[in-house]
Amino acid sequence: RIDGERLARRIARLAEVGAIEGGGCARLALGDADRAGRDLVCGWMRELGLDVRVDAIGNVVGVRAGRVDGAPVMTGSHIDTVGTGGRYDGNYGVLAGLEVVAALNDAGVRTEHPLAVAFFTNEEGVRFAPDMMGSQVYAGSLALGEALAARGIDGPTVGEELARIGYAGAAPVPGPVPRAFVELHIEQGPVLDREGVDIGVVESVQGISWTEVDIRGTANHAGTTPMALRRDAGWAAGALIACVRELALELGGSQVATVGRIEFFPNLINVVPRQARLGVDLRNTDEAQLQLAEARLAAHLENLRAAEGVDIATRSLARFAPVRFAPEMAARIERHARALGLSTRRMPSGAGHDAQMLAAVCPTAMIFVPSVEGISHNVREFTHPHHLEAGARVLLTVLCELAGG
Amino acid sequence: RIDGERLARRIARLAEVGAIEGGGCARLALGDADRAGRDLVCGWMRELGLDVRVDAIGNVVGVRAGRVDGAPVMTGSHIDTVGTGGRYDGNYGVLAGLEVVAALNDAGVRTEHPLAVAFFTNEEGVRFAPDMMGSQVYAGSLALGEALAARGIDGPTVGEELARIGYAGAAPVPGPVPRAFVELHIEQGPVLDREGVDIGVVESVQGISWTEVDIRGTANHAGTTPMALRRDAGWAAGALIACVRELALELGGSQVATVGRIEFFPNLINVVPRQARLGVDLRNTDEAQLQLAEARLAAHLENLRAAEGVDIATRSLARFAPVRFAPEMAARIERHARALGLSTRRMPSGAGHDAQMLAAVCPTAMIFVPSVEGISHNVREFTHPHHLEAGARVLLTVLCELAGG
Ligand SMILES: NC(=O)NCCC(=O)O
Ligand SMILES: NC(=O)NCCC(=O)O
Repeated sequence: RIDGERLARRIARLAEVGAIEGGGCARLALGDADRAGRDLVCGWMRELGLDVRVDAIGNVVGVRAGRVDGAPVMTGSHIDTVGTGGRYDGNYGVLAGLEVVAALNDAGVRTEHPLAVAFFTNEEGVRFAPDMMGSQVYAGSLALGEALAARGIDGPTVGEELARIGYAGAAPVPGPVPRAFVELHIEQGPVLDREGVDIGVVESVQGISWTEVDIRGTANHAGTTPMALRRDAGWAAGALIACVRELALELGGSQVATVGRIEFFPNLINVVPRQARLGVDLRNTDEAQLQLAEARLAAHLENLRAAEGVDIATRSLARFAPVRFAPEMAARIERHARALGLSTRRMPSGAGHDAQMLAAVCPTAMIFVPSVEGISHNVREFTHPHHLEAGARVLLTVLCELAGG
Repeated sequence: RIDGERLARRIARLAEVGAIEGGGCARLALGDADRAGRDLVCGWMRELGLDVRVDAIGNVVGVRAGRVDGAPVMTGSHIDTVGTGGRYDGNYGVLAGLEVVAALNDAGVRTEHPLAVAFFTNEEGVRFAPDMMGSQVYAGSLALGEALAARGIDGPTVGEELARIGYAGAAPVPGPVPRAFVELHIEQGPVLDREGVDIGVVESVQGISWTEVDIRGTANHAGTTPMALRRDAGWAAGALIACVRELALELGGSQVATVGRIEFFPNLINVVPRQARLGVDLRNTDEAQLQLAEARLAAHLENLRAAEGVDIATRSLARFAPVRFAPEMAARIERHARALGLSTRRMPSGAGHDAQMLAAVCPTAMIFVPSVEGISHNVREFTHPHHLEAGARVLLTVLCELAGG
């Protein structure tokens, strides 16, 4: 009953909004392209007969009435992307939710409980920290005022941008608690693709620790300043990048560690940098190990401070403990996928997801489909159409069971 | 006959143009602030009776007629600054030249040979590479077409910006060869200040090697990509910064090495960088050692390429061998400074200067005055007024002798 081609057409159409070279998208949260993407998806929601509600942090929830009133079974994800994003991350989960609605409409089926398809604001967290901002506010784990005040890397705040693009809605936050939440997403990592498995049954999401490190040294002339007299914020930044890699290799296991963002000031070839600012991303499936990684980072910063005489300040941009999803939800997904003849594998999620925020308020689970070569946050992100369709079929059967189909 | 207060007033007035917090200046070459600074200094030149000529690369030469025609004795420097520049670097040499002219005007003295005060385009090289661009074109060691085609870090070319600010002049390049060239400059390093010496007699300028390093890896998700599967351009950049420091410490002697400039793409906290671009500045007073430093850099890049599987391309942005000034010119400066009761010290220059380009075409030398704590390319750059005046007095006597006063 899932129409794979209709789903693929919507994915391709949404990918035209903010399209960038190589087939990817740049729709940073609350920018003009995000607004255009939101308008497009809201239009589809209305065409499908959904009652569209926008809340105070810009989350959009489209509700399909059930035979009884009350809390809906919810699916969804996000449609914002990173600056070099693919067309599947987030978008797939939202558009597969719409495909489920379309399939139910085609079949003339009304579920017992309402069904909702949501897209949450600023899941990626690259323009405004923290990530999963909208779903946190929805679930009540982040205060609205704090979220609205978050300032973007390009200047304006979340509140200013929401108002500017017309998505500061009237629906209250925290939002109404769903009966259950199921998020369908591409894996974004290499496991399913490498093992040739169709469906990932996500049992947990690894913990995430984002830190902004601000290093202050002394600007000076690159030609005249003896090495021994430098307080070089740029050198300390470089050494930190090396330490972050080292820390990940030392801890091993699921530990990953990345410096994806850096800025030097004044950033000129013959000036010893007076300031360097970096973003450090640490993740681990185990909270104790993640705390160990954070402690190692702090120790490295202390050493760099002593070695170069620089000042170092840190600011936490996001911190989430690992989340375990409800076991009965995972079992349900596994059962339905197998009944559809699909191979499955239980796994943790390496990426953060809106589902990890909803998990605090209702039974929650995630369905993964394979990412070719595990490439994501890259325009070359790709998932085969038959996997996109398979994931949507699992989503349909799981939602129907939860909503009483 | 030098009026130290008049000199200080001109320095303070020019420092108002492009003033930034902390008492410094941001007048990047050929930007709006540079145009305003040029207009101001050209106005002063005309007030002092100089015949002002602008050449095809935007160098400005103000000529004071002598008793005979022919090649002038020239002094000068530059008025462009780095992004966090002080008020002395370059400006001091130009405005001290104007003070020499003012002093001669006051005294009603006409020298035998003409006297010229010049400021050269884009000495700093931070917006457009290479540095010392205008003086190279003046001296014929860089082709005009190549200089005009240089593209700035913010997009436009030198040619476009010269036309825009109205400083693409009619005077031909290479320019007329002076009888001699003397550049007065702040040391920008710590030596004179630490040793309590008034005047640096500059015998040489160290060699400069600027390389842009462009590293290409694969953008990927920071949370889902195992460490072993990364081609992380950001990590390679960090490791390179560490190698550049190591190389300087290993070579020792006069070797300095700096990474002052870096950019990541897409530069987002949860994306493994697909590209990193860095500027590496290597300097040594010894050409053989500088070549050794360059070879070590190349070897490090080879290792990083192999270690991370990244692609690395390099581009030379500037390359100047060490320059030795004419010994009789240095001796002349030393003699005059001592006759004025000032203490002197022979020394190399750590920074690049326009004089090193003029040295290829005429007898050339430089006079240094102390920089407090050696701080330069920093808004806190400072030289005591009595040193500013002392330097100008030496310049006056040297120029008078050279021009036949
Ligand atoms: N799924 C996804 O890419 N989320 C963005 C947050 C993160 O994991 O960095
Ligand atoms: N004097 C001076 O700062 N020149 C700029 C070129 C350089 O040495 O980096």
